[in-house]
Amino acid sequence: MNGAESLVRTLVQGGVEVCFANPGTSEMHFVAALDRVEGMRCVLGLFEGVVSGAADGYFRMTGRPAATLLHLGPGLANALANLHNAKKANSGIVNIIGQHATYHIDYNAPLTSDIEALARPMSAFVRTSPDAESVARDGAAAIAVARQGQIASLILPADTAWNQADGIAEVEPAEAGASYAPRAVEEAARVLRGGEPALLLMTGSALSAHGLELAARIAGKTGCQVMGQTYNPLMARGRGRFAIDRIPYVIDQALPILQQFRHIILVEASDPVAFFAYPNKPSLLKPNGCQVHRLTAHGERSVAALEALAGVLGAKPHDAQPQPQMALTPPSGALTPAAIAMAIALAIPDNGIVVDESITTGRGFFPPTAAAAPHDWLQNMGGSIGFSPPVATGAAVACPDRKVICLVGDGSAMYTLQSLWTQARERLDVTTVVFANRNYQILRGEFAGVEAGAPGQRALDMLSIDRPTLDWVSLAKGMGVEGRAVHSAEQLCAALTAAVAEPGPRLIEVVM
Amino acid sequence: MNGAESLVRTLVQGGVEVCFANPGTSEMHFVAALDRVEGMRCVLGLFEGVVSGAADGYFRMTGRPAATLLHLGPGLANALANLHNAKKANSGIVNIIGQHATYHIDYNAPLTSDIEALARPMSAFVRTSPDAESVARDGAAAIAVARQGQIASLILPADTAWNQADGIAEVEPAEAGASYAPRAVEEAARVLRGGEPALLLMTGSALSAHGLELAARIAGKTGCQVMGQTYNPLMARGRGRFAIDRIPYVIDQALPILQQFRHIILVEASDPVAFFAYPNKPSLLKPNGCQVHRLTAHGERSVAALEALAGVLGAKPHDAQPQPQMALTPPSGALTPAAIAMAIALAIPDNGIVVDESITTGRGFFPPTAAAAPHDWLQNMGGSIGFSPPVATGAAVACPDRKVICLVGDGSAMYTLQSLWTQARERLDVTTVVFANRNYQILRGEFAGVEAGAPGQRALDMLSIDRPTLDWVSLAKGMGVEGRAVHSAEQLCAALTAAVAEPGPRLIEVVM
Repeated sequence: MNGAESLVRTLVQGGVEVCFANPGTSEMHFVAALDRVEGMRCVLGLFEGVVSGAADGYFRMTGRPAATLLHLGPGLANALANLHNAKKANSGIVNIIGQHATYHIDYNAPLTSDIEALARPMSAFVRTSPDAESVARDGAAAIAVARQGQIASLILPADTAWNQADGIAEVEPAEAGASYAPRAVEEAARVLRGGEPALLLMTGSALSAHGLELAARIAGKTGCQVMGQTYNPLMARGRGRFAIDRIPYVIDQALPILQQFRHIILVEASDPVAFFAYPNKPSLLKPNGCQVHRLTAHGERSVAALEALAGVLGAKPHDAQPQPQMALTPPSGALTPAAIAMAIALAIPDNGIVVDESITTGRGFFPPTAAAAPHDWLQNMGGSIGFSPPVATGAAVACPDRKVICLVGDGSAMYTLQSLWTQARERLDVTTVVFANRNYQILRGEFAGVEAGAPGQRALDMLSIDRPTLDWVSLAKGMGVEGRAVHSAEQLCAALTAAVAEPGPRLIEVVM
Repeated sequence: MNGAESLVRTLVQGGVEVCFANPGTSEMHFVAALDRVEGMRCVLGLFEGVVSGAADGYFRMTGRPAATLLHLGPGLANALANLHNAKKANSGIVNIIGQHATYHIDYNAPLTSDIEALARPMSAFVRTSPDAESVARDGAAAIAVARQGQIASLILPADTAWNQADGIAEVEPAEAGASYAPRAVEEAARVLRGGEPALLLMTGSALSAHGLELAARIAGKTGCQVMGQTYNPLMARGRGRFAIDRIPYVIDQALPILQQFRHIILVEASDPVAFFAYPNKPSLLKPNGCQVHRLTAHGERSVAALEALAGVLGAKPHDAQPQPQMALTPPSGALTPAAIAMAIALAIPDNGIVVDESITTGRGFFPPTAAAAPHDWLQNMGGSIGFSPPVATGAAVACPDRKVICLVGDGSAMYTLQSLWTQARERLDVTTVVFANRNYQILRGEFAGVEAGAPGQRALDMLSIDRPTLDWVSLAKGMGVEGRAVHSAEQLCAALTAAVAEPGPRLIEVVM
């Protein structure tokens, strides 16, 4: 077998069974190997931002890395923004990046660039295979890194793909890392027993249904509060689950909430920090004198740590307080954020997946959707827009039996609208809801936030995307996805009901 | 004035009068300054690949850099692929990249990344302004670099934008570089007088109408041949101009052509090298024993060098041979590449601009279009697809009185289709012709070229984009551009005639 085939076989044997791809000439032997190797599903994206975002969504839903197949430096460059988001979400990905044949690189042909340098800012592992015999081993090393929730970038010169290789390589099992630090549990118990106002700030694996249930017991027993980060990779939500708030994005809303705490106990979370800096506002959001303690970091077993903490504290299931839940009633009339939130809460089906890049429109989505059917809620961890259509695509590939609802602002959706085509091609069960406010609405607030005064006409032109109006039904149709524009809450409810009732991709343009 | 305003004023005073932008929070003070400073046209793109490609097109048509405005690392990342193409075209660009406030960077907020590392592979100049007082001076330094046809990336932490600055900075005039090397002219003259088969291989500024006219005299006088590189940033073409061929992309076609030469004289061009390596084919295309001489490099004055060479050789205007030209007759029937080429040749208006990313469909476009009305022909220098819609956008901003015809394959056009929206918003005079062969057609040839055998079904799935069919008329409509699908040569001619007759953006889908 050649190097490319040795890699494909190594990937499959290593549990990497999906490859999101946009290949070119230097990747043709990898593509050819797909015909000879069983077990690798290759999904084409018409732009690499779709490819990398889909791999992020796939990892979040399965905990297993997908591969991407990218065409030299520019193909990688196009993937970088969503790789940035994936890196911040601790989503493991194996990037396979084609390169010129080893002997061709120095001739500076048009596509030549410094691929390693491009890969490094977003990757925990960067390696260029020197020869065909090394490809399988390098691929196995990349898989090992990606399994840990990191980005691994393997660069494959064309001759290492087409020359003869020895065979496949085994992925070395991960060293059994510390599951959690018992001393951190003791410290957290001491703080919580102390009775001073305390916040359990959680993200990552702590936000599973079981992690949240344990946190509810601890909160009920000790009186601490529990919150999520502003953004989280995946949160179990809906009826019967412990509904927690997140730290607000807006600093002036976050500060008074955090002001009340003397202790913050971090469960995989970061010390709360402002998304951006603003003149005369703090970067760190905790109050003066607040002590920060860490229960677990990423990579540790947060659920086990919470279990241990609940045990030490004697927090039992009955300690969890009953959850007040908003009543869900079909909205009517204008498409206000509240009406939209209610319509979405009513539409989310049991075991649904919500990928949320609703930015401004969605700031009030949490209270009503806490009363929706049980679901998972995915958010953008890196702040690079164009996140949710690709991530929804990858989540749907990962979970063919679950409905995916992709919530996205029109400005964000334009970044990676090519995702719709992949959804149509693969008949993925994704309902995309585009909030067409025809603005980079968030920037209107930010403009004031950075004390830039009131925008004049030229500045406003950079914040508005209303001229011409984007017609999302036509854009969807152009890529083979059925779309529908809605102008009232009733129409939105009807469109969501119809979309959820049938499998396959749909788009709903919410004209605001 | 604050740092952002000092930069905008420095840019305008330094001749940078257009900014292609997709700003975010950290760039709001730059946006706000637009309201206070006259002379800067800010053009919004809904994806940064549009922004950087447009700046490339603007430089090619004006010889002056535009600015881009990009949102932190991910905004830059999205721009990189077309920055790669611009770098390879020696198109100067001033990238203004927002960054977190200096004191906020270390908190690792979601959008934090190593921006300098991302910028470096595509940039000749990378600098992060340390404070507001430095911004104008750093901006002036960036302009000086960009004027030389290089990419300059200036990173602007938010507090350097909003803090008080001293004022604007002057751009230092460029050192008067060598216009060309007289000894290189003597050497070229000696070779050409020697009478051995010689090729004048030209690109860059040599491909102006006057440069080509001088080359025609030299060829007529000495019997040398004149060719262009496979790809060139801009070539003056059409009736009354010296029509030259380019080195074919396909190695097996290039080798026999180059085989005949004992000397290659490079006028800004590179020693001919294969676009990709293939098993058992050479990377360097010149024959054994062929001597390569350099008349000029990029940055030297090639037209002056050709003038001097013609002078030394005594090559006069009457030495230029009359040009045989293909007769242009309206095509009919099927949309073959030849029929399409003829239709385009008939449609190109006087002083038109053709931006060519037609890949496979366009390989035969040169002979008929040599007989078209005089025009400029722009090509992709870096091989990263999604090039021509943004470059056409920037060329139209640069030259509002000239019709721009954008030729693009459907696979390429999907990368940066957001360009159509900017064309609609700015009412740019661009006719986009999409060749809808519903394949990455080039890869079918490349698959065989790298000796990967015959593709099976899974491999073919990675080369075809026909499921679902892209509907370009709907995609254009979705972004406010009138589109039309054509199924015959007659329909194509009619659509082109209509599009050329009226200003404003149009799209023609050529269904192949």
